[in-house]
Amino acid sequence: MTSTKKPRARQLGIPFDGCPGPLNAITDVPGVKVGFCTLVEGEGKLTIGKGPIRTGVTAVVPRGKSNLDRCFAAWFSLNGNGEMTGTTWIEESGCLEGPVLITNTHSVGVVRDAVIGWMQQQKAPPQWCLPVVAETYDGFLNDINGFHVQPEHVLSALNDARSGPIAEGNVGGGTGMTLYQFKGGTGTASRLISFSQDQGYTVGVLVQANYGKRDQLRVAGIPVGREIEDLMPITGEEGTVDSSAPGSIIIVIATDAPLIPVQLKALVKRASLGLARNGSIAEHTSGDIFIAFSTGNRVPSGLGTDAVDMLANEQLTPLFGAAVEATEEAVLNALVAAETMSGINGNTAYAVPIERLRAVLRKYNRLLL
Amino acid sequence: MTSTKKPRARQLGIPFDGCPGPLNAITDVPGVKVGFCTLVEGEGKLTIGKGPIRTGVTAVVPRGKSNLDRCFAAWFSLNGNGEMTGTTWIEESGCLEGPVLITNTHSVGVVRDAVIGWMQQQKAPPQWCLPVVAETYDGFLNDINGFHVQPEHVLSALNDARSGPIAEGNVGGGTGMTLYQFKGGTGTASRLISFSQDQGYTVGVLVQANYGKRDQLRVAGIPVGREIEDLMPITGEEGTVDSSAPGSIIIVIATDAPLIPVQLKALVKRASLGLARNGSIAEHTSGDIFIAFSTGNRVPSGLGTDAVDMLANEQLTPLFGAAVEATEEAVLNALVAAETMSGINGNTAYAVPIERLRAVLRKYNRLLL
Amino acid sequence: MTSTKKPRARQLGIPFDGCPGPLNAITDVPGVKVGFCTLVEGEGKLTIGKGPIRTGVTAVVPRGKSNLDRCFAAWFSLNGNGEMTGTTWIEESGCLEGPVLITNTHSVGVVRDAVIGWMQQQKAPPQWCLPVVAETYDGFLNDINGFHVQPEHVLSALNDARSGPIAEGNVGGGTGMTLYQFKGGTGTASRLISFSQDQGYTVGVLVQANYGKRDQLRVAGIPVGREIEDLMPITGEEGTVDSSAPGSIIIVIATDAPLIPVQLKALVKRASLGLARNGSIAEHTSGDIFIAFSTGNRVPSGLGTDAVDMLANEQLTPLFGAAVEATEEAVLNALVAAETMSGINGNTAYAVPIERLRAVLRKYNRLLL
Amino acid sequence: MTSTKKPRARQLGIPFDGCPGPLNAITDVPGVKVGFCTLVEGEGKLTIGKGPIRTGVTAVVPRGKSNLDRCFAAWFSLNGNGEMTGTTWIEESGCLEGPVLITNTHSVGVVRDAVIGWMQQQKAPPQWCLPVVAETYDGFLNDINGFHVQPEHVLSALNDARSGPIAEGNVGGGTGMTLYQFKGGTGTASRLISFSQDQGYTVGVLVQANYGKRDQLRVAGIPVGREIEDLMPITGEEGTVDSSAPGSIIIVIATDAPLIPVQLKALVKRASLGLARNGSIAEHTSGDIFIAFSTGNRVPSGLGTDAVDMLANEQLTPLFGAAVEATEEAVLNALVAAETMSGINGNTAYAVPIERLRAVLRKYNRLLL
Repeated sequence: MTSTKKPRARQLGIPFDGCPGPLNAITDVPGVKVGFCTLVEGEGKLTIGKGPIRTGVTAVVPRGKSNLDRCFAAWFSLNGNGEMTGTTWIEESGCLEGPVLITNTHSVGVVRDAVIGWMQQQKAPPQWCLPVVAETYDGFLNDINGFHVQPEHVLSALNDARSGPIAEGNVGGGTGMTLYQFKGGTGTASRLISFSQDQGYTVGVLVQANYGKRDQLRVAGIPVGREIEDLMPITGEEGTVDSSAPGSIIIVIATDAPLIPVQLKALVKRASLGLARNGSIAEHTSGDIFIAFSTGNRVPSGLGTDAVDMLANEQLTPLFGAAVEATEEAVLNALVAAETMSGINGNTAYAVPIERLRAVLRKYNRLLL
Repeated sequence: MTSTKKPRARQLGIPFDGCPGPLNAITDVPGVKVGFCTLVEGEGKLTIGKGPIRTGVTAVVPRGKSNLDRCFAAWFSLNGNGEMTGTTWIEESGCLEGPVLITNTHSVGVVRDAVIGWMQQQKAPPQWCLPVVAETYDGFLNDINGFHVQPEHVLSALNDARSGPIAEGNVGGGTGMTLYQFKGGTGTASRLISFSQDQGYTVGVLVQANYGKRDQLRVAGIPVGREIEDLMPITGEEGTVDSSAPGSIIIVIATDAPLIPVQLKALVKRASLGLARNGSIAEHTSGDIFIAFSTGNRVPSGLGTDAVDMLANEQLTPLFGAAVEATEEAVLNALVAAETMSGINGNTAYAVPIERLRAVLRKYNRLLL
Repeated sequence: MTSTKKPRARQLGIPFDGCPGPLNAITDVPGVKVGFCTLVEGEGKLTIGKGPIRTGVTAVVPRGKSNLDRCFAAWFSLNGNGEMTGTTWIEESGCLEGPVLITNTHSVGVVRDAVIGWMQQQKAPPQWCLPVVAETYDGFLNDINGFHVQPEHVLSALNDARSGPIAEGNVGGGTGMTLYQFKGGTGTASRLISFSQDQGYTVGVLVQANYGKRDQLRVAGIPVGREIEDLMPITGEEGTVDSSAPGSIIIVIATDAPLIPVQLKALVKRASLGLARNGSIAEHTSGDIFIAFSTGNRVPSGLGTDAVDMLANEQLTPLFGAAVEATEEAVLNALVAAETMSGINGNTAYAVPIERLRAVLRKYNRLLL
Repeated sequence: MTSTKKPRARQLGIPFDGCPGPLNAITDVPGVKVGFCTLVEGEGKLTIGKGPIRTGVTAVVPRGKSNLDRCFAAWFSLNGNGEMTGTTWIEESGCLEGPVLITNTHSVGVVRDAVIGWMQQQKAPPQWCLPVVAETYDGFLNDINGFHVQPEHVLSALNDARSGPIAEGNVGGGTGMTLYQFKGGTGTASRLISFSQDQGYTVGVLVQANYGKRDQLRVAGIPVGREIEDLMPITGEEGTVDSSAPGSIIIVIATDAPLIPVQLKALVKRASLGLARNGSIAEHTSGDIFIAFSTGNRVPSGLGTDAVDMLANEQLTPLFGAAVEATEEAVLNALVAAETMSGINGNTAYAVPIERLRAVLRKYNRLLL
């Protein structure tokens, strides 16, 4: 199911700026763990409640599964045709309490309540929970109104959360997604920033990418989408091209840089600029919603006053660049990792053809390898 | 269970400004319907998953059950320790699509997905749904981690939605709530505004009120909470006063005035000022989250351009006053309607003692009757 | 000109909550200094450019005149019919750099540029300045289109900035203001918060108050404005009552509590609730714009990372209460300090009649003395 | 001084998406007029208050000089290290009242008050004015602390406002600006959108561009800045490269599409995506502040309710694309129009070398001509 055997975007020779971390993944940020539950069952005609099923759940756990300590956090909506629960509390408190989950549009509720159940099982359960759960729409391939995500799938994704390399493409919440009218899904990337020999930070990004019209796709500035006009998604019943899909992208930015919430608010906005590099115009029907958190502080809680670390504002720009670059690359990692998938009624989204993609870049003298 | 037989706040002689509608309820706004599902089962010791249960679901349906046409809308968070799903889409689109539901904190998810299921059953179901579901915390009386709200309760509340008088106090989502450390819950009020003989509008408010420390309570400006220091909520097991409760208030403002979203954003902020009249300082652990919508327009959708009506900005102030006044009164209606309730472990929240409340106002020469 | 000889609101027996600081002024916050330049010249008929002049400039200097170190800060607009420059940078950086100035609506520009000139004269001038200058409208009494505020008046207010008691009423930017259709202007108050024997903080508020219709005025919850219906402002030429005035209030909140920007954003919103206690509904034509800053930290700047102190979120509520209470009192201090003033064309705003105000409170058993 | 004789970006063969209007300028939007006042005096060593002067004022007048009728409007700050006055009122009212002015950072105040003076001279002057004035920093070339912009320069820019082609480069507020460490300044572009044979709209953009590090510059996706590493700005005194400059960009978007404020808020955010196409990461020291307005409605004012036109939300995406594309092109128009300029102390910013720019694009097969 996972697509980790395929080469990643930079291995194909696509040029990127900046210096990635060892895994080029959000898990390069120390402590961050990612887990998936992928649901793929059935083929053929849609019977609501029966399938076919092409969906799942992705879990990003900021400090590992046994540590619910709050993290400074912020969020931003570039275009708000989507849901990310828990954002009102993030905006108010400047903190994320617990994991970030991503699933399909119509399963946000079940995932939210299941996260509460999971948090209540922890050693020191909070009195109340306001979980963060986001979504993109997979109704082109998945029986989205069949509500197939169940609480056990949420626990499965949370329990699966781990350090190390991350599966990309058709996994977790990204299972049934499309991207620039190719197959899309989950992608990740990271950047290292060095301020001095002793001081350096990591910015990691994970995306669930499900947006865009073909002719908008740019790779390294090259209008690739206009040079690969075929392989459009087809509706199985009619065999015709589908062009109606509402799209969305959820972007999670993690960093160990000690940023306070107002700085994370600035950082999270930069996801917009990374998106734009791949050609996004943030269409009206897109839920382009982003969250950033920092593991670089233990946030004071309870009684009294405590010290927190804060990077000087004057040092923010390299982090902004890292967020832009890692977002750009994470989306392309999702694109190149995803494999062709058929779902309800035989509807099909095609994987981007790797060699043709490379040929286009070569034509424009933009291929590195 | 419902408390409609008790006199309402103004019938007790509490003075209010402005002119209420015939029902003094949100249902004075033409088309608005309200329904409840109230869950009260069991007594005694808490067994998570078994009860006792003191919770429910409230449904506010802007245009009636068979009309999902979008309404212009806006929201505001005075203090964001709470959840209201769907707000990112309201902020983006300026529209509310579907009903507004209110329940307990840990049941937002199940309610949200159930609303999607209900909307998918409508004649012309939308491709995707981003329902609005809000909450306050009833864990002092209710087995909140037992997740007792089920999809059928959501359908029950929606099916119950009707015009006419509205039950107040211990009903629907407000069933297990406390207010200034008395029993709280659901309340409503309305105001009529007349611009000319031919032109007038209604502003209606519904609250789910669950906030405040006793000594903050003011009624008609009088520090009533300081004059009624007993009847504090008690924890049944220990028999001691509970003072830990996180609180919240959800406020829904409806109007038939033809306001566009930027005007509704201004209107919805005024709920803060109504709250303050009763003594609220919007504590840190309070989710004071408000939504306003207007039924005064058919919002253009699909292709092309259409005309919408817009009240001139210069006419907004009377609507602001109405929102302040109706919020102030709706909270007090919740307070005086609610009846003493015992819940988990015998925890008990007491109804405000009506005659003593009147006596305090009389002492300050503020009682009308 | 100043009105410091008159008794302040609490000296009249008006009841307030909380514990004021020794001066009951924003200058109770260590380091905060306030200065005024008051311009009163001419009488009689308005000749634009000649007068009569009833205006001025108020300067609030967070850390004293020789210390431009940034402070954490946040702002909020309850109703945005007004100007506060510099807020975009406060929102972005979480910091206030330099003083806060308040003047009349049409003099914001000259004050802003003059502050830049003043900052460029400091020992270590910043490369660029984005000063914070706010306003309320004094065109009922002042030749506002005569642009009488000059750069030297700004320097005069800044140079006048000092610790200690603060003049209230018809001083500085508040000189020509009206409040609930009485004479208004400048007011201040403060609250002390004690978390433990060793840990306590001060919240100070300064207002330039220029808003409200008479019948909205409440004092200690009592509808005073409805009991004193005469003494309405009169237009000298016609001798008729003026009811057209757009109003506004600028509120500055200072604290030495070590709050980070997201916490100051929560604090500054509470000014709304203090306003509401005096009856404000935040009319459409009102510029109700607030700023809060904390002197409780040295903000990291330049290279690297530094520690900052942060009060735990769980400790915020007492600060919220303090902001509400000090705002309520500062407005009433402005009201009782202001003296009757005539301005352009003989237009006149009357001071609130102190003994009648006390008589109304006594009637409602709300007078303490 | 103006640079209109130079070929514009698309005439050089730079590829762009979409269909420009006849002038490819913001003045393609019917009614919109633009005027400049350009101040260039003196050479050599900086004497504060004497010069050299390299600055000016740009005026964008939405409905022409004799029509101050409000326009629906919205604004957005991508990065807030800058000033745009009047935005609090735009956010509140959803309207722009009067023109938009752009100047240097330290002259915002004088321009603001001068606009009030100008508006007070109109036939039906408003009672109060809250003008919109924005800025970018020209202190590398201009005696910015000499405050050389005077009220008469503001009137000159306003009086100069006209339909037709617009000068670009070193004109108006853009006179002393740098862009990706080349000379920058003023640029404009437009796009036509056709919904049907009968229904079409124009989106026009004007920028004052003053941001970016050289190695960030991308043109049509090609990393041009890395291929032209010389011609860096030099400080005349030292002859060394200046790399300290804080930067900013002000973007004005005009349209005749009948958008209501919530829709303009979405539109104005898209300027971010256009910026990103040219490589911007919105550095911390950049004031990237945008405003959008629509001339497509007469906004109701005064008494009563009126109809306004509203494009259905479903039709917004083509407008978003137009805003992205026109922003991208306007920035490059500023870049190619600007001519090498020396200012204070002989500091010099070089014009981008046009033929080398074309050679880089040709190398990447991205040059159209």
